[in-house]
Amino acid sequence: MSERKPSTEVLVVGGGMAGLAGALALRANGAEVTLVERAPEFGEVGAGLQMAPNASRVLKRWGLLEKALEIGVRPKHLVFRDALTGEELTRQTLGGEFEERYGAPYVVIHRSDLHRILLEACQEAGVRLVNDVVVEKVETVNARALAHTSSGDVYAADVVIGADGLKSTLRAAVVQDSRVQDRTIQDSPVSSSYVAYRGTVPITAETPAADLEDVVVYLGPDCHLVQYPLRKGELLNTVAVFKSPSFERGEEQYGGVDELEAAYKDCVPAVQLALRNLATSIRWPMYDRDPIENWIDGRLVLMGDAAHPMLQYLAQGACQALEDAAVLQDSTVGSVFTDDGVDTGAWDRAIGDFNSARAARTARVQRTARIWGESWHVSGVARILRNLLFKSRKDGDFQYNDWLYGQEGDGVPAAGPLAVPRTESLAGTHA
Amino acid sequence: MSERKPSTEVLVVGGGMAGLAGALALRANGAEVTLVERAPEFGEVGAGLQMAPNASRVLKRWGLLEKALEIGVRPKHLVFRDALTGEELTRQTLGGEFEERYGAPYVVIHRSDLHRILLEACQEAGVRLVNDVVVEKVETVNARALAHTSSGDVYAADVVIGADGLKSTLRAAVVQDSRVQDRTIQDSPVSSSYVAYRGTVPITAETPAADLEDVVVYLGPDCHLVQYPLRKGELLNTVAVFKSPSFERGEEQYGGVDELEAAYKDCVPAVQLALRNLATSIRWPMYDRDPIENWIDGRLVLMGDAAHPMLQYLAQGACQALEDAAVLQDSTVGSVFTDDGVDTGAWDRAIGDFNSARAARTARVQRTARIWGESWHVSGVARILRNLLFKSRKDGDFQYNDWLYGQEGDGVPAAGPLAVPRTESLAGTHA
Repeated sequence: MSERKPSTEVLVVGGGMAGLAGALALRANGAEVTLVERAPEFGEVGAGLQMAPNASRVLKRWGLLEKALEIGVRPKHLVFRDALTGEELTRQTLGGEFEERYGAPYVVIHRSDLHRILLEACQEAGVRLVNDVVVEKVETVNARALAHTSSGDVYAADVVIGADGLKSTLRAAVVQDSRVQDRTIQDSPVSSSYVAYRGTVPITAETPAADLEDVVVYLGPDCHLVQYPLRKGELLNTVAVFKSPSFERGEEQYGGVDELEAAYKDCVPAVQLALRNLATSIRWPMYDRDPIENWIDGRLVLMGDAAHPMLQYLAQGACQALEDAAVLQDSTVGSVFTDDGVDTGAWDRAIGDFNSARAARTARVQRTARIWGESWHVSGVARILRNLLFKSRKDGDFQYNDWLYGQEGDGVPAAGPLAVPRTESLAGTHA
Repeated sequence: MSERKPSTEVLVVGGGMAGLAGALALRANGAEVTLVERAPEFGEVGAGLQMAPNASRVLKRWGLLEKALEIGVRPKHLVFRDALTGEELTRQTLGGEFEERYGAPYVVIHRSDLHRILLEACQEAGVRLVNDVVVEKVETVNARALAHTSSGDVYAADVVIGADGLKSTLRAAVVQDSRVQDRTIQDSPVSSSYVAYRGTVPITAETPAADLEDVVVYLGPDCHLVQYPLRKGELLNTVAVFKSPSFERGEEQYGGVDELEAAYKDCVPAVQLALRNLATSIRWPMYDRDPIENWIDGRLVLMGDAAHPMLQYLAQGACQALEDAAVLQDSTVGSVFTDDGVDTGAWDRAIGDFNSARAARTARVQRTARIWGESWHVSGVARILRNLLFKSRKDGDFQYNDWLYGQEGDGVPAAGPLAVPRTESLAGTHA
């Protein structure tokens, strides 16, 4: 039954944002790339996605930014409001100085649009795309990775990129590899007890006109709501995220519409009205995992959510996958892929460099996303402190943004007003 | 048995800071003043006391500031540190611009020293001081207040100043008077479940030299510690305040030394060493009461802690009593006490004016002290927010101080960066 597939230089497992971006990056370096996806078709569920400059710079590098701008929206501001009072807490103007400083625009785009742009780019670049393939295990033999599929096939490649998402199958081998002595490392997805509803509705004459050109985040106790326009301003994207008591209790039926409504009952009318824009047939539980240092097992290397799944508060899930791809491209060009052809001996060094360059940064983004999210959902005196802190910030104060959005070597201060331990820092937050 | 004491214009009940200051203020206007105190001797327990400019301005008005400065200390800075890391969070330089802006210095002084200064001033001014008198009840008959004592005596006066402290006996009549319809107003002291230990020790060559010229506040989870010099820098004053689990559970034996040590176990060595300076024989429970609008029952008017007991976080207990006295002086001069002698008919208007001028302000101080204290004791994400907020403040930024320390008509902004509801504001905090 087992069939040995034609050998490939790179096998990418997973056809989400991370896998497509990784495939494209390595293909851009001249590699022969096969991408396999377990689903029968390529596609992306969900609603809107925020591309911060650290991600849109990657699209720019690949010549895809124009396509994204054709279908996406450049919001004018990022605005934070208190959900109980509607009061504006802080805002960041996203054009002008912001765009200049970070070298690319802030773009909001439908997830399916960005996915399609990357998919088409892969197709045009000559990535071999295969559906209906479930890779169950990767082993490394004589500096070759052998990917075993559920149907008994084996793909041989110089390297396998494990981009199989939050519930990654391939991650287990990597984490087992990092196991220290007798200590069992718990690497299951961590539930935050928060649930999201999303929705996109057409913007009509009846849509309240306030903030329609901005990304607006309403912060409430144990809940928040995000709104921004999509598709050249024709659609309004809404995301409601709240702590689900039934989810916290571990019930199987959790996060129902009754809980959604209860969660926002003390919020201003603008927030309550916005709940009508949500599609109530799907609710997404919010998971991440603890950061891990090692992403490699032999010739298997993880990227994207498989390596560093994060909560959505910094809106960096897809952005970090794009950063991964850019660094993977840089780590392999000129070493693995030289002018003289492929130097397969350099693969181990290249994926090691990639892992080293990325793990500390994505760990910081993962940890900061957790704390940043906590700060959105506080009540009592913590809410007062949060609001005073946000209000003390001025538009165009980049101290909280530079580490996250800044360009490499752009002079991000190593210490400053935020020289607190990294795991405790709110540095790199939107505000 | 009942003896009618010689009639007096003003009877002050209570010989603490508030009573002495009130007596002095009315005596300065020429009133005949009798002050009665339940204890057999005048005196004051406790350790150090912080006199902010809003209080030292009152001493200045009475010509007593020089005496306070002879025995007190002008700290150089007010410094806030994180108790878990020792990190400086914010500081306020107390000389120079601060002193100029607020028209008087920030002075720290032993409670007994300030009490003695006020007592001597009362004696010199001719206030009649009487010990061992417990006033149980005040009734108003024909525009005269009759104060009934526990020994059956009756003092008659134009007005009685109820300055009998946190556990005020006289307050009950006033609050009962404010009772609305069938609603019973709960006016018992409110426990914060926090307990204080205090201590003053000589400063020797062995005393750690850091911060010895400053008021330093270490903020920790469910605890804080304050240190500053007293008596011209010869004594070191230390106050440790922490949440007592046994006090919270309502146990009779609460806040023992074991709890004290457990409360600070995660703090930096500087804090842990400072606990040795505490006198462990007395621990003070921390109480306040909810603000009340009306302080008057007939010709009885409350002042000081009897009217507005507050938590100590703003260090304003004695300061607000001094402010009370200054306003009482202003409310009566030129009306009750005119150039033509005493106009007893004006008393009702005068104490009404006093009450009106003071109640909103002291209510704000009471409420802010509670929230300000809460912000000192936070942990988790609230601590991160608090620290970032404090660190975002610059030395010499007076936005949080003006409403509390500012001189009347000094242009304190009615709204500004802190235009949040007053009960939710941290405005007027030390930081």
